[in-house]
Amino acid sequence: MQIDLEPVGRRVTCEAGATLLEAAQRAGLMLTAICGGGGSCGRCIVRVMTGNVTAPSLSEESALGGDIALGYRLACQTRIAGNVRIHIPPDSLVMAQRIQAEGEMPAIELNPAVRAIDARIESPAISDLRSDGRRLRDALDCSLPGHDSPRMVIDVEVMRRLPDDLRAWNWQACAFVRDPGLPKIAMHLHLKPHRPYLVRKNLWPEVVAIRPLGALPLGLAMDIGTTKLAAYLVDLVRGEIIACTGAMNPQIAYGEDVMARISHAVGHPDGAEQLRLTVVEALNGLARELCAQTGRDVADIADAVVVGNTAMHHLFLGLPVRQLGLAPYVPAESAPIDVKGREVGLKLATGAYVHLLPNIAGFVGADHVAMLLATGLAERDGVALGIDIGTNTEISLRARGRHLACSTASGPAFEGAHIQHGMRAAPGAIEKVTIHDGRVHIKTVDNAPPVGLCGSGILDLVAQLFRTGVLNTRGDMKAHSLVRRGNAGAEFIVVTGDENDGREISVSRSDVAEIQLVKAAIRAGIRILLNHAGVSEADIEEVIIAGAFGTYLDVQSGIDIGMFPRVNRHRFRQVGNAAGAGARMALLSVAQRERAARIALQIEYVELSAEKGFQSEFTHALLLDV
Amino acid sequence: MQIDLEPVGRRVTCEAGATLLEAAQRAGLMLTAICGGGGSCGRCIVRVMTGNVTAPSLSEESALGGDIALGYRLACQTRIAGNVRIHIPPDSLVMAQRIQAEGEMPAIELNPAVRAIDARIESPAISDLRSDGRRLRDALDCSLPGHDSPRMVIDVEVMRRLPDDLRAWNWQACAFVRDPGLPKIAMHLHLKPHRPYLVRKNLWPEVVAIRPLGALPLGLAMDIGTTKLAAYLVDLVRGEIIACTGAMNPQIAYGEDVMARISHAVGHPDGAEQLRLTVVEALNGLARELCAQTGRDVADIADAVVVGNTAMHHLFLGLPVRQLGLAPYVPAESAPIDVKGREVGLKLATGAYVHLLPNIAGFVGADHVAMLLATGLAERDGVALGIDIGTNTEISLRARGRHLACSTASGPAFEGAHIQHGMRAAPGAIEKVTIHDGRVHIKTVDNAPPVGLCGSGILDLVAQLFRTGVLNTRGDMKAHSLVRRGNAGAEFIVVTGDENDGREISVSRSDVAEIQLVKAAIRAGIRILLNHAGVSEADIEEVIIAGAFGTYLDVQSGIDIGMFPRVNRHRFRQVGNAAGAGARMALLSVAQRERAARIALQIEYVELSAEKGFQSEFTHALLLDV
Repeated sequence: MQIDLEPVGRRVTCEAGATLLEAAQRAGLMLTAICGGGGSCGRCIVRVMTGNVTAPSLSEESALGGDIALGYRLACQTRIAGNVRIHIPPDSLVMAQRIQAEGEMPAIELNPAVRAIDARIESPAISDLRSDGRRLRDALDCSLPGHDSPRMVIDVEVMRRLPDDLRAWNWQACAFVRDPGLPKIAMHLHLKPHRPYLVRKNLWPEVVAIRPLGALPLGLAMDIGTTKLAAYLVDLVRGEIIACTGAMNPQIAYGEDVMARISHAVGHPDGAEQLRLTVVEALNGLARELCAQTGRDVADIADAVVVGNTAMHHLFLGLPVRQLGLAPYVPAESAPIDVKGREVGLKLATGAYVHLLPNIAGFVGADHVAMLLATGLAERDGVALGIDIGTNTEISLRARGRHLACSTASGPAFEGAHIQHGMRAAPGAIEKVTIHDGRVHIKTVDNAPPVGLCGSGILDLVAQLFRTGVLNTRGDMKAHSLVRRGNAGAEFIVVTGDENDGREISVSRSDVAEIQLVKAAIRAGIRILLNHAGVSEADIEEVIIAGAFGTYLDVQSGIDIGMFPRVNRHRFRQVGNAAGAGARMALLSVAQRERAARIALQIEYVELSAEKGFQSEFTHALLLDV
Repeated sequence: MQIDLEPVGRRVTCEAGATLLEAAQRAGLMLTAICGGGGSCGRCIVRVMTGNVTAPSLSEESALGGDIALGYRLACQTRIAGNVRIHIPPDSLVMAQRIQAEGEMPAIELNPAVRAIDARIESPAISDLRSDGRRLRDALDCSLPGHDSPRMVIDVEVMRRLPDDLRAWNWQACAFVRDPGLPKIAMHLHLKPHRPYLVRKNLWPEVVAIRPLGALPLGLAMDIGTTKLAAYLVDLVRGEIIACTGAMNPQIAYGEDVMARISHAVGHPDGAEQLRLTVVEALNGLARELCAQTGRDVADIADAVVVGNTAMHHLFLGLPVRQLGLAPYVPAESAPIDVKGREVGLKLATGAYVHLLPNIAGFVGADHVAMLLATGLAERDGVALGIDIGTNTEISLRARGRHLACSTASGPAFEGAHIQHGMRAAPGAIEKVTIHDGRVHIKTVDNAPPVGLCGSGILDLVAQLFRTGVLNTRGDMKAHSLVRRGNAGAEFIVVTGDENDGREISVSRSDVAEIQLVKAAIRAGIRILLNHAGVSEADIEEVIIAGAFGTYLDVQSGIDIGMFPRVNRHRFRQVGNAAGAGARMALLSVAQRERAARIALQIEYVELSAEKGFQSEFTHALLLDV
């Protein structure tokens, strides 16, 4: 049977009886299927446009109701009975939300590290006995205007295939050449750049792959988050994203947060290698998926960029993380790194490199640098703040020509951990809360029946409770019709059991205390940086909030509880996953890599645990009116 | 039992009953033991200075005679009965002869690609949170005078070990830094070299290994001959050879000559990989042996150079050889190559590179370039000729500012093949022949009873027979008391059965014809090059004869039969294994690598099979009086 998948325009062949979910997977499209295809999460909604499929199941009827009449179905429940054409709504695709949350990438000049050069090569003859390598170099030298270099490096693995490839392709081929722009500067050696390079450059360009004539070089940008992986397939000629995808970071099986991963790496004989292989395989899987989606070949991926926090960066490269888990938490390496994909297990074009942006410190990594790249914060005049909230929150302050950065242990409360009814931002999570006329109004993810509170919901809730006087400045709950004395102290009823099939959702005094700890950590970090720079909060002209959670939180709630500086709401900018955008910028331009290296070098890292003032700032910031 | 081995000064422990040969092997010393330790070849002679050993065997008595009283013994026959001190004569060591045959290496300025820099690194503290990588770079930058680069590349595998190594060594380490001299030129980018580099150089130095403080960097030069491997362990600080060794090229199991190896590589599914692994393992074995001999560690081998003919070069690197076996016989690659040892399976320091000198053509390889490097032929003024005789003979002509080279198929006759009583230069081979007063005088290898004729012997014999009129100019044998009409035509009795325990050794008309083919191929090649350059034989000021066979042949015999140009004997220079010397020069100086690359580019290769005049020159040169 042929299954046409719209709007991506992919066709796959499946046997009758296969589910539409399986068909989509075969096409490399990852539908949201949180329940694993059991029909219970109701997320893998597709619309059958034409063709025969099996009748709706009971779980579909309960999930979709009247929409079934319009052709909407759950892909995991619907089996193929003939040729079918389906339409997949963006919400059903993994990453759909994430993509919408992407920060815009600023326009940059396209200057990728690798370019494709078509070469028509003279074939050997008794009158022309040049080696295959020289033959290729000669053909390529002619193709590079102004290039008087007699030489060009050919990757040894490319060299191993070159004679057979050139003969198979009748002496026509496309060479992926890395760093072809540089020789104009360095080979002639009469130009003196104003400063030395910070990113590795060779005197010579290198042929990193040979492909058939007319091949289009692709780039792969990857963001290794502690929780999620994101990958972007980019056309290096046009500079456009041609596909993107994401997945959970499968290292989660070895520990939810960075410290747990480090413990696993250090505490098990092959722990670090296990973690390395796990993430490398997952990234290879994403690359394959992106290529399958777009009908491309991983052998066309001529260049790659990876960003991640320092621990993710180290685990990916196989660098030791033991010292990252022990004071004073120093990285093995902070400089940008270029390494051949094959040296770290990435399956790319034959000799393609992967570039890793620099790290700043043990808990301020390459992903923060990528965010700075995408937002322009590091080069900004005036006073500006950048905050990437997570289990560790990285904070950058640009002020008076200086750039200060720190990391503060904000903990997992915004991930729902340590909160009695906390949860991640899955369907049914309360993500917005307002209290109006003494009544609680909520919005849940996907408008599903409320299940618990995710980070943005609990932030709103604390802010609303404080604003309406239910909480005092220390976070204690006053008497209120919805406040009850429970076993563990006071708690505020957000959703009563009566209105929610008996499932009550509440927030306790100790939940509020968790949020106070988070907000105090962030606010104290900000104030320490401001003190270092000698500026006050009122001087802050812009506050950039980056990261997935930062995309969804309500800035005013953050201001109201004193997590963010008390500056006007319009000075805030929520930029979404700016790390992914920064990774793409580095992929599209070597000048951006150079820029990232300069940014990393100019940053003054402030270790909060060494700051005498931190503890008192933190204690002070526990108050909600600070 | 303790066995002291002199003059190398090594001590090993062995059980009683072990042979002295085994003791020497345990110490990494390879004694000549052609018969495999059976007591029959009589080559593994050592002298017992003190201590108890078993009584002499019958084979020792026959091999050593009265020398036994002086303590001389066969190591394979002599068993240990107590602590023993022995002295090993140079002749008993594998390579001893070869070492004597080494061409002298001209004095060169020491400028190795890798230098060792001891670094005392500041340890991390809460007030100093630099990454380990940056910490190392900072320490190294201070150690390089005039080096203002903020950066230095660290090999990723070194990086993987760096944090643990630095902590284990208490923040003191020795970095092996590759190409540290270059940044003085290129990083500042205000010097304009008069011509672009031909050998790969990076803008940045690279840390290729981290070793304990005070480590001494070693270099490994390797010559991959079709028949023999040679390896030299070099102290990169003093520029001295500290040990050298050799072995048969174990690829011989897959074919004796280059064409047979190519056939095996092309004709068997894993043939090329088999050949590659075989030679790589053998080279790793030689490196281990050299380190064992000198008490060093292969992890200290900071740099390596490999030379070999084009086929050996390609098989070592895993480059395809199919096109080398088919007209027009083009190499996959002719440029110099730098590749990390680990990428080709060589076990060196962590991130150490191996440099391969350039090839000229399918049958003029990197070993010829190395010979040119060692002899200075390529930069010589006037008219000079370089000849490296083997199954293929490479010829270089330097004349009128041009450098012409060719390869001629001289065949294996000088290896003893296709000669009825031919053999290699093993004990008993007749290596020198004179005919005086109608009587034949011979000298055999090791003065052993004559077994057959090796290359230099048969060359002498043909020359002597021609000089004394037994052969006419066409190679026909005239009547003579020692000439007999055998089944296969005329033959000349070299050693009668009577004088040699019934074993007669003779040379036949067809043996003479084989030598005529060889000498015609060589002489015709020389003449074609001379014609190209427009000079005559009389103009030749110097003839350099390189290679193992070239060391032992009698030049006058070569002149007499017209294999060499008829110029005065004193214009000839026999330089021994100049390829090994050239490899060592490239190891000791990057300037020599650059020189080799320039030499390779300036050579005009002449393909003899495309030369119209070659066939008539060849036919003419079959005559012995040409």
